[in-house]
Amino acid sequence: MVSREEFLEVYDKLKSQLLEDSDVFAYTEDSRKWVEKMLDHNVPGGKLNRGISVVDSLKHLKSGVELTKEDKFLACVLGWCIEWLQAYFLVLDDIMDNSITRRGQPCWYRVPKVGSIAINDGIVLRNHIFRLLRLHFRSKAYYLELNDLFNEVEYQTTCGQMLDLITTPAGEVDLSKYVIPTYLKIVQYKTAYYSFYLPVACALLMVGKSLDDYKPTKEILVLMGTYFQVQDDVLDCYGDPQFIGKIGTDIEDSKCSWLIVQALKRANKEQKQCLLDNYGKSDHECVAKVKAIYKELALQTVFLEYEKEVYDKLITEIESQEDHAVQTVLKAFLAKIYKRQK
Amino acid sequence: MVSREEFLEVYDKLKSQLLEDSDVFAYTEDSRKWVEKMLDHNVPGGKLNRGISVVDSLKHLKSGVELTKEDKFLACVLGWCIEWLQAYFLVLDDIMDNSITRRGQPCWYRVPKVGSIAINDGIVLRNHIFRLLRLHFRSKAYYLELNDLFNEVEYQTTCGQMLDLITTPAGEVDLSKYVIPTYLKIVQYKTAYYSFYLPVACALLMVGKSLDDYKPTKEILVLMGTYFQVQDDVLDCYGDPQFIGKIGTDIEDSKCSWLIVQALKRANKEQKQCLLDNYGKSDHECVAKVKAIYKELALQTVFLEYEKEVYDKLITEIESQEDHAVQTVLKAFLAKIYKRQK
Ligand SMILES: [Mg+2]
Ligand SMILES: [Mg+2]
Ligand SMILES: [Mg+2]
Ligand SMILES: [Mg+2]
Ligand SMILES: [Mg+2]
Ligand SMILES: [Mg+2]
Repeated sequence: MVSREEFLEVYDKLKSQLLEDSDVFAYTEDSRKWVEKMLDHNVPGGKLNRGISVVDSLKHLKSGVELTKEDKFLACVLGWCIEWLQAYFLVLDDIMDNSITRRGQPCWYRVPKVGSIAINDGIVLRNHIFRLLRLHFRSKAYYLELNDLFNEVEYQTTCGQMLDLITTPAGEVDLSKYVIPTYLKIVQYKTAYYSFYLPVACALLMVGKSLDDYKPTKEILVLMGTYFQVQDDVLDCYGDPQFIGKIGTDIEDSKCSWLIVQALKRANKEQKQCLLDNYGKSDHECVAKVKAIYKELALQTVFLEYEKEVYDKLITEIESQEDHAVQTVLKAFLAKIYKRQK
Repeated sequence: MVSREEFLEVYDKLKSQLLEDSDVFAYTEDSRKWVEKMLDHNVPGGKLNRGISVVDSLKHLKSGVELTKEDKFLACVLGWCIEWLQAYFLVLDDIMDNSITRRGQPCWYRVPKVGSIAINDGIVLRNHIFRLLRLHFRSKAYYLELNDLFNEVEYQTTCGQMLDLITTPAGEVDLSKYVIPTYLKIVQYKTAYYSFYLPVACALLMVGKSLDDYKPTKEILVLMGTYFQVQDDVLDCYGDPQFIGKIGTDIEDSKCSWLIVQALKRANKEQKQCLLDNYGKSDHECVAKVKAIYKELALQTVFLEYEKEVYDKLITEIESQEDHAVQTVLKAFLAKIYKRQK
């Protein structure tokens, strides 16, 4: 479909285009250097799964026929718009979470001379998306829908982020708020729309579909995104650090993780007290006590049951989709994440 | 045209609409309360000149004929979109500038329990704009241009903010960067587009004009916006605190103000050294020394000359506009700011 290298070539093109673009703002020498460094630090260093999946999805929607050079390029542009969107969210999220590192390097706001300028840089990233859409899609019939889509998904993600921030404020965590409906709503809005629905929706628009006709597809992708986040939470505790590339700290960080939500639901009075006393402490013994209760409650088994159930549900729903090409897209997505170890 | 009270009634309507809207995200009880408080704190408390001027401009463009109820309402909606945009910029700007108060109350990020959540709240404000546009203008022929306009102006403002942030970084000011072309570019992008061009452009779209045909109008409005900011800088030093509602601190804050830029350009070696030694210090004597040099250099006279020159230029250019209704709009804007004392 598209290799990581090919996809990265498009990044270089788009970056140059944005930095040379003088239609609404012409960069000065200093600001061009600043933005180039900011883009290179924040945009291309992730796994790029979200971006690349636009190209994959488009190919499936075209029944596997090789894409024209132009289609492939445009799908890459949309893929990069999603990566830009992700970078925008992450730059700001790291400031709000007071994080230290991201993708193996310091968070952008921690880079010398950046500091709170990172807030405006996040906004620059966001604005680049609409420049890119305008530069490459203004003449397309789906330009308006594409704009609406990115606006809608940005709003959903921002609302999910807000739920997360007011449910789990730094410093003063109230575990009584960690219940399943809240967890699901945060995950759905904060992660699922932009990570799962958005790539497929971009591809659907490119083949001339109206998104209003694909509401069931959206629901399936949101469910898949939720499953993906549950996996993320489980891997944070049980994954192999060598595989996942980091040592999980959700327990220490008082995260509203699927595991703690399930544990609180299942715990007896004693276990619950132990969780309240030990969750959110940066202390090996406290973490061990929390993990011991997870074990008593057999959360790994609970997860395997959830995984089986959600998988069956997803397969059933996917197979009930009218559009066969869409079935292929969805199955390809599911295959990528089912039983993942990283 | 529209009274402040009438305009504020529309705010209440739009706020309810956003909080009840469940199309892309349904607020929970907690998040609805949070956002309502955030909106009330940040959106309606300013002078509202920018917002109200959309309604005024529309009336002028309709040759002074009384607006229909619907037109008036829609112009108010666009006016509020500009106020929302301003609130978004100010919430984030106050964090980046480490400001204490705004409009006579604590900056939002300084309100207890808010802190860095204010960053995401800024983004919520931004996203509300596109919800409002979609809810009220989706069926209009100019919907696409309206979206592009807000995106374009947001990008310009963000770029202006970036120039400001990298030219005048907190803590380590380099006065050699305070030169006229830099000053003008910062002001043009950071302030003029959204404060002066945007309200008129909104009104032009409402009467069915294409913005491409109004590039000279844009230039005039940008020049007016620049003049407005120069006034702001001069009033910060020489205005009556009782009139302008605050005691200026641009000198203490090392601001890249029109006055320091003019002073540095005109100062001899000795005066320049004195400016370098005393600018940006929170010390009465240092401030007095800077002001003494401003006096030696007769900057108030320099300002009056600039004001006369820019006024004449504006009048000439306004009168060369083909569209007479546009002339009226521009003259009304100019009349509001010429020789203003607050
Ligand atoms: Mg985070
Ligand atoms: Mg976070
Ligand atoms: Mg995680
Ligand atoms: Mg400020
Ligand atoms: Mg500022
Ligand atoms: Mg000022």
